[in-house]
Amino acid sequence: MRIVETPEAVRAGNTSLTGLVPTMGFLHEGHLSLVQAARASCDRIVMSVFVNPLQFDDPGDLERYPRDLERDAALAEEAGVDVLYVPPLEVMYPVEPLTTVATAGVTEQLEGKHRPGHFVGVATVVAKLFASLQPSRAYFGRKDHQQLAMVRRMALDLSFPLAVEGCPIVREPDGLALSSRNVFIGDRPRALSISRGLEAAADAVDQGIRDGDRLVALVEEQLDLDTVDYVALADQDRARVIERLDRPAFLAVAGHLGRVRLIDNLPLDLVGEMFVPDRGVRLSAPSALTRL
Amino acid sequence: MRIVETPEAVRAGNTSLTGLVPTMGFLHEGHLSLVQAARASCDRIVMSVFVNPLQFDDPGDLERYPRDLERDAALAEEAGVDVLYVPPLEVMYPVEPLTTVATAGVTEQLEGKHRPGHFVGVATVVAKLFASLQPSRAYFGRKDHQQLAMVRRMALDLSFPLAVEGCPIVREPDGLALSSRNVFIGDRPRALSISRGLEAAADAVDQGIRDGDRLVALVEEQLDLDTVDYVALADQDRARVIERLDRPAFLAVAGHLGRVRLIDNLPLDLVGEMFVPDRGVRLSAPSALTRL
Repeated sequence: MRIVETPEAVRAGNTSLTGLVPTMGFLHEGHLSLVQAARASCDRIVMSVFVNPLQFDDPGDLERYPRDLERDAALAEEAGVDVLYVPPLEVMYPVEPLTTVATAGVTEQLEGKHRPGHFVGVATVVAKLFASLQPSRAYFGRKDHQQLAMVRRMALDLSFPLAVEGCPIVREPDGLALSSRNVFIGDRPRALSISRGLEAAADAVDQGIRDGDRLVALVEEQLDLDTVDYVALADQDRARVIERLDRPAFLAVAGHLGRVRLIDNLPLDLVGEMFVPDRGVRLSAPSALTRL
Repeated sequence: MRIVETPEAVRAGNTSLTGLVPTMGFLHEGHLSLVQAARASCDRIVMSVFVNPLQFDDPGDLERYPRDLERDAALAEEAGVDVLYVPPLEVMYPVEPLTTVATAGVTEQLEGKHRPGHFVGVATVVAKLFASLQPSRAYFGRKDHQQLAMVRRMALDLSFPLAVEGCPIVREPDGLALSSRNVFIGDRPRALSISRGLEAAADAVDQGIRDGDRLVALVEEQLDLDTVDYVALADQDRARVIERLDRPAFLAVAGHLGRVRLIDNLPLDLVGEMFVPDRGVRLSAPSALTRL
C-alpha cells in the first residue's frame, strides 16, 4: 500500500477500474466493509482520509473528532487498500475556497434541517475527490442515507462518470450502528434504544405495516435519548418525508445522548413488489475499534 | 473528426493531453483561435457545442441565440478539432438538475450584478464538462474576462486536474470584438464606440495613466450605446472593481444597442513591472462568419 498526499500521486496508478472509499479516518468495520465491497469489483482501491472542516457545523465536534492515522494505515493495509490518500489541509485548500457545490431538493429535510451548511460542505469535498481522483466507483455506507442520496444525485447532476454504491450498515453484536463517534458514548444501554426501535419497525414492515406514522411511533416508543432531532420515514431518492411506505425508503433517527449526536436508520428496499428491511450486517464479536 | 453525443464517446479516445474548447456554437474566428492555441500544446482537441439553457437569464436571448451545427462542424474540422462533442439536452440533463456550482467572491460584480443566475449556470455546466470529459487543458477567450476568472477559480477550488488558458480577444478589422451575437447588431458605427473607447484607454495606459476613474472616463467619452450597464476597472484574479491599476486588471464595458447586449474589455497584464494592454488579435479581412 502506498500512502500519498496529492491527487497526482493517486492518479499516477489509475487503472481501468478504481474504487474510492472516502472516509474521515478513525476507521471501524463499517469503513472496512466498504473496502471489501470495492475489492469485489475494482482493480484498485483508493481510500481517502480527510477530516473536512467545511462540513462541520459544530466547531466542538470538529475539534474532538477522533484521529489516529497510524492505526488507520495498518487497518487499511490489512483490508486491501492499494492507495491511502491523506491530503494535508494545504493540498485540499491551497487558497481560500470560494466555490461550493449544493444539491437542492435532497438536503432540505432531516440532517439538512438540523445541520446547516453540513451538506454543502460534504457535496463540495466529495466533488473535489471525484474531480481530482477520477474513480470509476465510489462507496458510501447506508448509515448516512441522506448523504448517500445527495452524493448520488450530485454525481449524476455534475456528470461525474462513476457509480455511487451504498453499502449495508455494520452493527455491533448488540445492535449499535458503528460510528467513529461511538467512542464518546457514555450510557450505552440508552444508545441501544435507537437500534431497538428500528428493529421493532423492521418487524412491523415484515408484517405488512406501511403507514409512516405507525412506523415512526414504533421507533419513538423505544427511544431513550436526551433529545430527539427527528424520527421520520423518507424516500431513498430525495430524502423527503413520506406518509406511506410506497417506494424505496428509509426510517431515520437522529438525537443526542450526552454530548454525542447519534444517527441511525433502517433502509426499506423494494425487491420485486416486497418491501425488505435492510437490517445491516451484525458483527459476531464486539468491534475492537470503537472500544479503544 | 468524430462528432459524438456522449461523454463516454469523448473519453474513449483520451490520450495523455486533451485540450477542451467549450463553446455555444455559431463559431467565429474567436473560437477558432482557441482551437489554434490548443493545437500548439495538446495531442487531441475536443470542442463542445452546447447552448446551455441554465446560463441564460433572458429567455428571449436563449430563444434567438444563433445556431448552425452544419457550418460549425465544417469550421471545426477545418480548424483541426479531433472530436466535436454535441450533447443533446437529455444527455446533459437526464433528470431535473438539482445541483449547482457557485463561485462566490468572483461573481458578485460586473456581469454577475447585471445577469442574475448567469454565472451559476456557467460554473455548473463547465464543471459538468470538466467532470465528464476529463480534459488536461481548457481554453476560454479573454472577451469574457470575468467568466475566465470564475472558471479558473472554480477549477482550482474543485481540484479539477487541468489548466485553464485565457486567449486574446479576436477583433474585426474595424475593432469590433467578435461575438456570435454580432449578427444582430443594427447600427455598427455606434457599436464601434466600445472598442474606440478601449483603444483610447490602452493608449493612456501606455502613457502611464494608472487612475481607474481616468481610464473609465476615457472609455465613457467615446461610448455611444442605448444604455450602459457598467464601465469598470477590475482585477483579473477576482473581477472586483479597483481604484488604481496596481495589479493585473481589465477594463470592462457592457451595454445595450437595440436588442443586443454587447460586452468587451481591455486586459491589462503585468509584464515584469510594466502594464501592457492586450489589444487582442485584429483580423486583416472582415470575418465571413459574423456577416452571415
